[in-house]
Amino acid sequence: MSTVGVLGGTGPAGRGVAIRLASAGYDVILGSRDATRAEETASTLLARGEGVIRGATNDVAADCEIIIVATPFESAVATVKELKSKLAGKIVISMVNALVREGKELIPLYPPRGSMAAQLAFALPDSTIVGAFHHLPASEMENLDSGLDADVVIFSDDVAARDRVATMVAEMPGLRAIVAGSMSLASAIEAFTAVCISINIRYKAHSYVKLAGLRD
Amino acid sequence: MSTVGVLGGTGPAGRGVAIRLASAGYDVILGSRDATRAEETASTLLARGEGVIRGATNDVAADCEIIIVATPFESAVATVKELKSKLAGKIVISMVNALVREGKELIPLYPPRGSMAAQLAFALPDSTIVGAFHHLPASEMENLDSGLDADVVIFSDDVAARDRVATMVAEMPGLRAIVAGSMSLASAIEAFTAVCISINIRYKAHSYVKLAGLRD
Repeated sequence: MSTVGVLGGTGPAGRGVAIRLASAGYDVILGSRDATRAEETASTLLARGEGVIRGATNDVAADCEIIIVATPFESAVATVKELKSKLAGKIVISMVNALVREGKELIPLYPPRGSMAAQLAFALPDSTIVGAFHHLPASEMENLDSGLDADVVIFSDDVAARDRVATMVAEMPGLRAIVAGSMSLASAIEAFTAVCISINIRYKAHSYVKLAGLRD
Repeated sequence: MSTVGVLGGTGPAGRGVAIRLASAGYDVILGSRDATRAEETASTLLARGEGVIRGATNDVAADCEIIIVATPFESAVATVKELKSKLAGKIVISMVNALVREGKELIPLYPPRGSMAAQLAFALPDSTIVGAFHHLPASEMENLDSGLDADVVIFSDDVAARDRVATMVAEMPGLRAIVAGSMSLASAIEAFTAVCISINIRYKAHSYVKLAGLRD
């Protein structure tokens, strides 16, 4: 099993992915700017599930074989730029969405290169960027008993990398891996997160995307 | 029951919506540039379902109380501009997606105003634009026995209009109405159609979006 580092792993997005990766048998390092906070979050998550989750700095998390970027969108590029050499030659999974609250809605922002995955790809020319984990409800992800049965829509220009991430996602409890295609779909997949969250705010729900009519 | 006109109604998008509206008891006029073709399509659809569907020119279809724009994206603005005065004061539903094929994928295009719904809103300042029916698989829509159980994600800046469209959608067999919010979500909802179709091409499926975890 590969080791997986989660940059910005103490936030709601990172925590859910970390606990489900650990449940699937992956060694997870939860990275944060604040190592103490990461250690505390790792302990909390460990108490709720099985497997190995350690807390550390983002710099230590970046030593893992596969890296997940789970920071807020505003700090994603700055975070990976500092770790550029460590991330070279690796799969870097972006779960970053550029969204802002506007009244009772979340609305999508379109970064200059079209998507946050494209921003990361530009910042990390020697890494292989894969997009995944965008539409998932954080609280359901973090609670292994939530009954979550969600689809993870995956994209990358690198066919081998997206297949590898799909294999990893399929091992995680409560998630099904769906490969959508190339980075040409990145903006559409990231932006739809705003739709999912806006619907959840409106309906006071924790809904998620499930594509009906696909064979498991 | 209101009368509903479907502009560009002989295409795959329009046909499915027409047959399900007629099944729900709406009087539907299928519009086309070619009235003969519209009459032929209407007869074919009538033979497969129940209710009233007539074929006519787009100009005649525009006399209905509610209008659905189901043309290809390239001709949507030109089509509605010609009918501007007839569409004034009415709800105009855009199901238009700007998509192009690129290899084995469909990818989204972003029109200058962000979405096709926004392009239509600019062309029709005296109409009320609502977006709906974007992510639906055409063949499953047209076949009333397909077992379709899909979500229709609805958006508009006009709260009353989107609620009215939601009521209409909820009456159509096989569809659930989900109000996402305002036109700020239009680009994200339209573009996600490219993701749905790309997944269907890749998996040789006719899948569709169903939001799990929402009460019916």
